[in-house]
Amino acid sequence: MLKVAVIGATGYTGEQIVDLIVSHPEAEVCCLTSRIEEPVLYSDKFPRFKGRLNANLEPLDVDKVIDTADVVFLSLPHTVSFQYAPLFHGKGKTVIDLSADYRLQDHTLYEKYYKVTHTDTGNLSKAVYGLPELNRDKISESHFIANPGCYPTVSSLSLLPLVKEGLLDDIIIDAKSGVSGAGRKASLPFHYAEFNENMYAYKVFEHQHVPEIEQTLSAVAGSKVNITFTPQVMAFERGIYLTAYANLTKDLSEDDIAEVYNAMYAEEPFIRLYRGVMPKLKDVRNTNFCDIGFAVRGRKLIVCACIDNLMKGAGSQAVQNMNIVHGLEETMGLI
Amino acid sequence: MLKVAVIGATGYTGEQIVDLIVSHPEAEVCCLTSRIEEPVLYSDKFPRFKGRLNANLEPLDVDKVIDTADVVFLSLPHTVSFQYAPLFHGKGKTVIDLSADYRLQDHTLYEKYYKVTHTDTGNLSKAVYGLPELNRDKISESHFIANPGCYPTVSSLSLLPLVKEGLLDDIIIDAKSGVSGAGRKASLPFHYAEFNENMYAYKVFEHQHVPEIEQTLSAVAGSKVNITFTPQVMAFERGIYLTAYANLTKDLSEDDIAEVYNAMYAEEPFIRLYRGVMPKLKDVRNTNFCDIGFAVRGRKLIVCACIDNLMKGAGSQAVQNMNIVHGLEETMGLI
Amino acid sequence: MLKVAVIGATGYTGEQIVDLIVSHPEAEVCCLTSRIEEPVLYSDKFPRFKGRLNANLEPLDVDKVIDTADVVFLSLPHTVSFQYAPLFHGKGKTVIDLSADYRLQDHTLYEKYYKVTHTDTGNLSKAVYGLPELNRDKISESHFIANPGCYPTVSSLSLLPLVKEGLLDDIIIDAKSGVSGAGRKASLPFHYAEFNENMYAYKVFEHQHVPEIEQTLSAVAGSKVNITFTPQVMAFERGIYLTAYANLTKDLSEDDIAEVYNAMYAEEPFIRLYRGVMPKLKDVRNTNFCDIGFAVRGRKLIVCACIDNLMKGAGSQAVQNMNIVHGLEETMGLI
Amino acid sequence: MLKVAVIGATGYTGEQIVDLIVSHPEAEVCCLTSRIEEPVLYSDKFPRFKGRLNANLEPLDVDKVIDTADVVFLSLPHTVSFQYAPLFHGKGKTVIDLSADYRLQDHTLYEKYYKVTHTDTGNLSKAVYGLPELNRDKISESHFIANPGCYPTVSSLSLLPLVKEGLLDDIIIDAKSGVSGAGRKASLPFHYAEFNENMYAYKVFEHQHVPEIEQTLSAVAGSKVNITFTPQVMAFERGIYLTAYANLTKDLSEDDIAEVYNAMYAEEPFIRLYRGVMPKLKDVRNTNFCDIGFAVRGRKLIVCACIDNLMKGAGSQAVQNMNIVHGLEETMGLI
Repeated sequence: MLKVAVIGATGYTGEQIVDLIVSHPEAEVCCLTSRIEEPVLYSDKFPRFKGRLNANLEPLDVDKVIDTADVVFLSLPHTVSFQYAPLFHGKGKTVIDLSADYRLQDHTLYEKYYKVTHTDTGNLSKAVYGLPELNRDKISESHFIANPGCYPTVSSLSLLPLVKEGLLDDIIIDAKSGVSGAGRKASLPFHYAEFNENMYAYKVFEHQHVPEIEQTLSAVAGSKVNITFTPQVMAFERGIYLTAYANLTKDLSEDDIAEVYNAMYAEEPFIRLYRGVMPKLKDVRNTNFCDIGFAVRGRKLIVCACIDNLMKGAGSQAVQNMNIVHGLEETMGLI
Repeated sequence: MLKVAVIGATGYTGEQIVDLIVSHPEAEVCCLTSRIEEPVLYSDKFPRFKGRLNANLEPLDVDKVIDTADVVFLSLPHTVSFQYAPLFHGKGKTVIDLSADYRLQDHTLYEKYYKVTHTDTGNLSKAVYGLPELNRDKISESHFIANPGCYPTVSSLSLLPLVKEGLLDDIIIDAKSGVSGAGRKASLPFHYAEFNENMYAYKVFEHQHVPEIEQTLSAVAGSKVNITFTPQVMAFERGIYLTAYANLTKDLSEDDIAEVYNAMYAEEPFIRLYRGVMPKLKDVRNTNFCDIGFAVRGRKLIVCACIDNLMKGAGSQAVQNMNIVHGLEETMGLI
Repeated sequence: MLKVAVIGATGYTGEQIVDLIVSHPEAEVCCLTSRIEEPVLYSDKFPRFKGRLNANLEPLDVDKVIDTADVVFLSLPHTVSFQYAPLFHGKGKTVIDLSADYRLQDHTLYEKYYKVTHTDTGNLSKAVYGLPELNRDKISESHFIANPGCYPTVSSLSLLPLVKEGLLDDIIIDAKSGVSGAGRKASLPFHYAEFNENMYAYKVFEHQHVPEIEQTLSAVAGSKVNITFTPQVMAFERGIYLTAYANLTKDLSEDDIAEVYNAMYAEEPFIRLYRGVMPKLKDVRNTNFCDIGFAVRGRKLIVCACIDNLMKGAGSQAVQNMNIVHGLEETMGLI
Repeated sequence: MLKVAVIGATGYTGEQIVDLIVSHPEAEVCCLTSRIEEPVLYSDKFPRFKGRLNANLEPLDVDKVIDTADVVFLSLPHTVSFQYAPLFHGKGKTVIDLSADYRLQDHTLYEKYYKVTHTDTGNLSKAVYGLPELNRDKISESHFIANPGCYPTVSSLSLLPLVKEGLLDDIIIDAKSGVSGAGRKASLPFHYAEFNENMYAYKVFEHQHVPEIEQTLSAVAGSKVNITFTPQVMAFERGIYLTAYANLTKDLSEDDIAEVYNAMYAEEPFIRLYRGVMPKLKDVRNTNFCDIGFAVRGRKLIVCACIDNLMKGAGSQAVQNMNIVHGLEETMGLI
């Protein structure tokens, strides 16, 4: 039984991980921490865990985590992981970091988009980017995983088979996210009475996930790939629906495109490919699946793909990574 | 053209009043105030007013209000109206106060339920309780209106014809409100991602609207009426749906009940009575109507009624009161 | 590994059971049937099962069910179970019937409220009413379970400890249900654009679940208990929130009430009791829990309780019953 | 006082027009028709009109319409207007057709996209395309208006100032619509319990609004403009949010772009331009406004725009056209 610590267990992602670990056949919670003064029953903070989990939420006690945990999920704001990831990794723990701190190999991009200094560039090369469909082997040999962002997960998964083959040009990603992606904090714009039936684009051209998507696509392409990316937040609780546009670099039929996807994903347990119809957001809700569909007209390709932003876009992908690192069945606790 | 000041123009109620005044044929905005430092275009604060209203939101300038306004809507938190209602009323303005400060004639009930001291008991008797269906004549002769609360409006309107005739015993009110009733402020429990598909009861037995409902019902009954009141907040943007239960004090058919309602409401422009089917919340959305239906089985009566909490439960009822006070057609700007 | 047939696998309840069985450690799907012409992949009908379940949805083949299934869930409209429940039960199968056909021991009540003839009165006494918290022992010795309705589950669970002790008088149940309770069928009133932000009471005094609730409460009281019941449908996907009112037959403190609940439920895995705060609907979403809170003022008691109507109100309670009948851990696959 | 007939008064668009006419200072309802057998009070069909409108919904009586109406709104499915538009127009009525029948000047495109025969090509040239911001003068001289579709309204308005100047290449339109756009009819996929939190793309490359958008853009460009168009339906009641992508044909700053928009729209009462921030869908809800924002990076332009699909996308734009045709103030009844 793997012992799991969740550092930052009160955000949406942290809570999602706790939920998954409670139901996981080969893992169990040992430490749940948050920036609080006194320990409190986790289920007093989150009553939906009553009757499912009898554990305290506590101030972070580094020594206790070191003494008890096999796996440490860092569900922390960016820059905070700099402090803990190397510490726990140095003690032999499996560290799965859900912040952005170790995702970008080029720390200057991190500093440009997150507008802070990267203070742990020395460990950047140790972290493996935790997108299993791309990096499964590396993940299995690592104990330090930089878990991908939500937009990058669905963007990369839906485009990389085609980008890898050099088939796409002028990539545009139009992404719509439910509001849980903005994190659990009091906010007037996202008050139910304000936000109900609302949607809008934000951080156009400037979202911090752009370099992360470009890093992944460029790596498989073998040359720099630039994207146009428009994030939009809509009055949904969960989910990301992505519509991508690209020009094909050569004539390809829908069968040709399908073949490229199948070549990479036919055996993937969490990728579901569609033909002739686009995926629906609700079908991935509360799952670790990424659903992908597409259409072609002349040289114009449209790809639609969706994930649950708190699952495949964060928490369940983190558990998938834990399964891989620890040699468990990859789908354990996730289907 | 009536000149209207809205003091507290950035809450849901204040904004609703501004919206109604902008469309009103015989009234126009002269002052919009809020606790801000510097004036700002109201439509910069609330872009939905762009192209509809060219007016500033300003820090409150009492002299300017006195110089320019005929009608002053006080859309303020309780206790704050104590300061402004007598001041503007003393200068000959029509004051329509949407706070709770002048609703309860017994200031000890105010102090008990609002847990603050009532500092203007001397003016309590000057304010008319602004429920037009009950107090139309008094309202028309007054320039100081205590606009009713949202729960009290629908509770009183749906029960008072029967209470007046002494027909009800053991009244229970089960009320469900959309979240705008909680006011416009950042709040984690009402964050869209938290509150979506959520509902729960709160302040059971202890809601501050209980004495207001009991005051109205007792006044028409001629003796003290006690109620059991359960407020519930649900993941709706707007609206209150009330289900009331009472024991009839004598045998009455549905026709008998209907007759009692008709006797009081047949000519009311904003009361709509149903037979054989209960009203639906959505039919009152964005309107000043109160819809009422009922059913009887033996001596048990069930009444269902609904309003839009920001309209008949606050802003449009305030405008209805303005129309009455100023001798305009009561429905002007409201249908 | 238990082999499970779901007869009527395309309604909300049937789909919910399939979902639970797919994740259940000791059960697996063997037959999924519906009124269709030709077999179709279940995951083609419901794409959210892609990658999770490789099974056909088929026209009902009684012999195949008899040959392969250990447990038969009948997720059928009322009157249709008359045909299949005795048939499968006669062949030694565990039958868990989610229709209303075997819930009411007095078939005249069935006929009055469902407005059809009861055609299998002979088997009524064989079926055990599947409310585990009340009938666990009988369920464990039976292979024919009448799974309770959604409103009756939460109504009975929240009131029966007090009714059993003869503590309640004049019980009123105000129940609010999400729209999935109305079943999966095209319907204009429940079209998203119609029903969004809508709610209303329906079948006041006349809902078919009234006699079911009264049967359970009367049985534990030892005398006839009558209730006033108001069902209301609201623009939520799932969930029932119940607010019950009753007069206490003697003076009782909140501690006294809590003791009564604890005496019956302290060890129950799926009942969660609250003190000082009412439960929130969202905390039971997608769970088999029933959450219960209460408040007392003088002799007036208010109880708030909630369940997920498709889970504890239907599908997961059916699986709980399966676990009990087959000697599995009662919480298996449910926590 | 203009007398208004609404033919097809029970769809979302027809109902929206009735609503607007009821509040209009210079127009009133004279005939409301639908495919029903017997007349019924309109407010019995739609209780939200109780107390606002005392008029029958009737089977269509062509002679009655001819005798009483000045303006006839045809809120009909495509192909049905072929029968009525020339008939009423021939009798001197102002015809505002909300179907697609007279929008496309090239009937072969109509036949290709709507998959039916165009049976009134002779009258095509008489109808003026009712986009006031483009065709105000022609509308004012006509009595036969082809009211634009919802997607085409927002697509054309947001892009045509730039297209007119030849500034855009490779236009991609990613459009998200609330579900009322699909019309008022019972539908399982749009049942609240199915569709809640759902969204998906449909008719990719093949939506019938594509040729309508291309017709408008090509006309102002002076040469054929092709677009890539992805419609998406999301779990919103109302509204369309459009995100368009294009390559600029020359280097342009944001100021340059703003100037182009201002040149065309500075005086438009229903166009609201944004700088530095994208518009929000909720700000146009229940209004006739079209809000437009944009961002530029290098040669890539992103435009975000939104309307209420039942208002500027249908009903209120139809009333705007009525105002223009009849020489009323264009904003009358719309602000």
